[in-house]
Amino acid sequence: MAERPGPEPLDLAILQATLRQFAADRQWQPFHTPKNLSTALMVEAAELAEIFQWMTPEQSARAHADLATRERIAHEIADVLLYLVQVADHTGVDIAQAVRDKLVLNARKYPAASPLGTGPVSGAALVDE
Amino acid sequence: MAERPGPEPLDLAILQATLRQFAADRQWQPFHTPKNLSTALMVEAAELAEIFQWMTPEQSARAHADLATRERIAHEIADVLLYLVQVADHTGVDIAQAVRDKLVLNARKYPAASPLGTGPVSGAALVDE
Amino acid sequence: MAERPGPEPLDLAILQATLRQFAADRQWQPFHTPKNLSTALMVEAAELAEIFQWMTPEQSARAHADLATRERIAHEIADVLLYLVQVADHTGVDIAQAVRDKLVLNARKYPAASPLGTGPVSGAALVDE
Amino acid sequence: MAERPGPEPLDLAILQATLRQFAADRQWQPFHTPKNLSTALMVEAAELAEIFQWMTPEQSARAHADLATRERIAHEIADVLLYLVQVADHTGVDIAQAVRDKLVLNARKYPAASPLGTGPVSGAALVDE
Repeated sequence: MAERPGPEPLDLAILQATLRQFAADRQWQPFHTPKNLSTALMVEAAELAEIFQWMTPEQSARAHADLATRERIAHEIADVLLYLVQVADHTGVDIAQAVRDKLVLNARKYPAASPLGTGPVSGAALVDE
Repeated sequence: MAERPGPEPLDLAILQATLRQFAADRQWQPFHTPKNLSTALMVEAAELAEIFQWMTPEQSARAHADLATRERIAHEIADVLLYLVQVADHTGVDIAQAVRDKLVLNARKYPAASPLGTGPVSGAALVDE
Repeated sequence: MAERPGPEPLDLAILQATLRQFAADRQWQPFHTPKNLSTALMVEAAELAEIFQWMTPEQSARAHADLATRERIAHEIADVLLYLVQVADHTGVDIAQAVRDKLVLNARKYPAASPLGTGPVSGAALVDE
Repeated sequence: MAERPGPEPLDLAILQATLRQFAADRQWQPFHTPKNLSTALMVEAAELAEIFQWMTPEQSARAHADLATRERIAHEIADVLLYLVQVADHTGVDIAQAVRDKLVLNARKYPAASPLGTGPVSGAALVDE
């Protein structure tokens, strides 16, 4: 599992502001519609899936042991996230709230199999206190 | 543009731990390989793009004015992010670091058009100090 | 619109047999499961969409006037079709029948807007007599 | 493997003409740009991949033994093909020629592993004589 990314968690709001400025500096705003950005997101998601497409599931679980592969995975993950936060920015979606809402829905939709499995999924668990 | 999501930014590491427990409680771990998760991510990305597929770019920029559409967008964005952080978790990728690395690469790859556009893109700008 | 491809329409059954032999000659059969092939198909579809992702819809309608772009489009279309017929081959799906069935469903689902628009969509119209 | 689809192979040119008329009857032409159609194609490809996303490769190879699953696969395959031939129609791409060109490229790119494996892949093998 990934270790905690150090003392500096990613702040999605700051990331959105940075990307907004990055696009403005390049006069990319006319291209950055939700339609275009969501297509670009899907393309990047496909590039991530492409890495694993001919692997068995087991091979895919070990693939990141190879450093070049891990770097490629990391780049595609970053690309997906960069487009995702831009789609959210341009559609007025609060990602943190959307995630919290979705987790509540998922917990209802998929009750834990175990009778003990009341689970830790609550919106509150997902945010820094 | 999205407003700042309040005082509680999303902590991706906590989100990953929550999803890991959620999967464990449902005995989903065997299914949660990078291969499967990246395919699921792509499927969710397609569901997001589907919302805008017949719209003009201009219509897509206004689509979230409709509350039901905005909610649908929010759900798909959340779904994409939930799978993305799980792929990162299972491949040992530090998302924050991957994003910082990618921004540096992008700034080199796409120099700002304006001579004044040195831009604010630095890895440091993206993390909470 | 595309002109009629000459006197030699593509025979999908022959194409499937050719690809089956092509895979066998390379010992690719273990990789050619419906799971893998459908992921590969999605990746190729994304590469096709990527060509148009920053264009306006109007620009996309004219993009093939550029020969290099048209060739790129043609290659991606071929890639999608090659994987599609392989998925069908490995899942026992008769593509021609599936298309006929779907057209009937679509004609019911989307009645023609015009009262005169009973339309030419019948399964019979789609096959060589 | 799929059996030969009977005496009536699918004629892609007739299919394209049928879909062109279908779109015209519904006044869908303004929406049917290569940009939109290729996005719709990717969405349908994702729906096909979704069927197999949590299966092992082995399970995916047997999934069509279930009739409901096979029907679902068939519908998604048809949807992909319907959009694919429309993209080709609107970009002036001759699908049969594109496939023949691509097979020649693939045969060069991936020489058969076996020294005897000169293989049957020639453009001529793919068309009805």
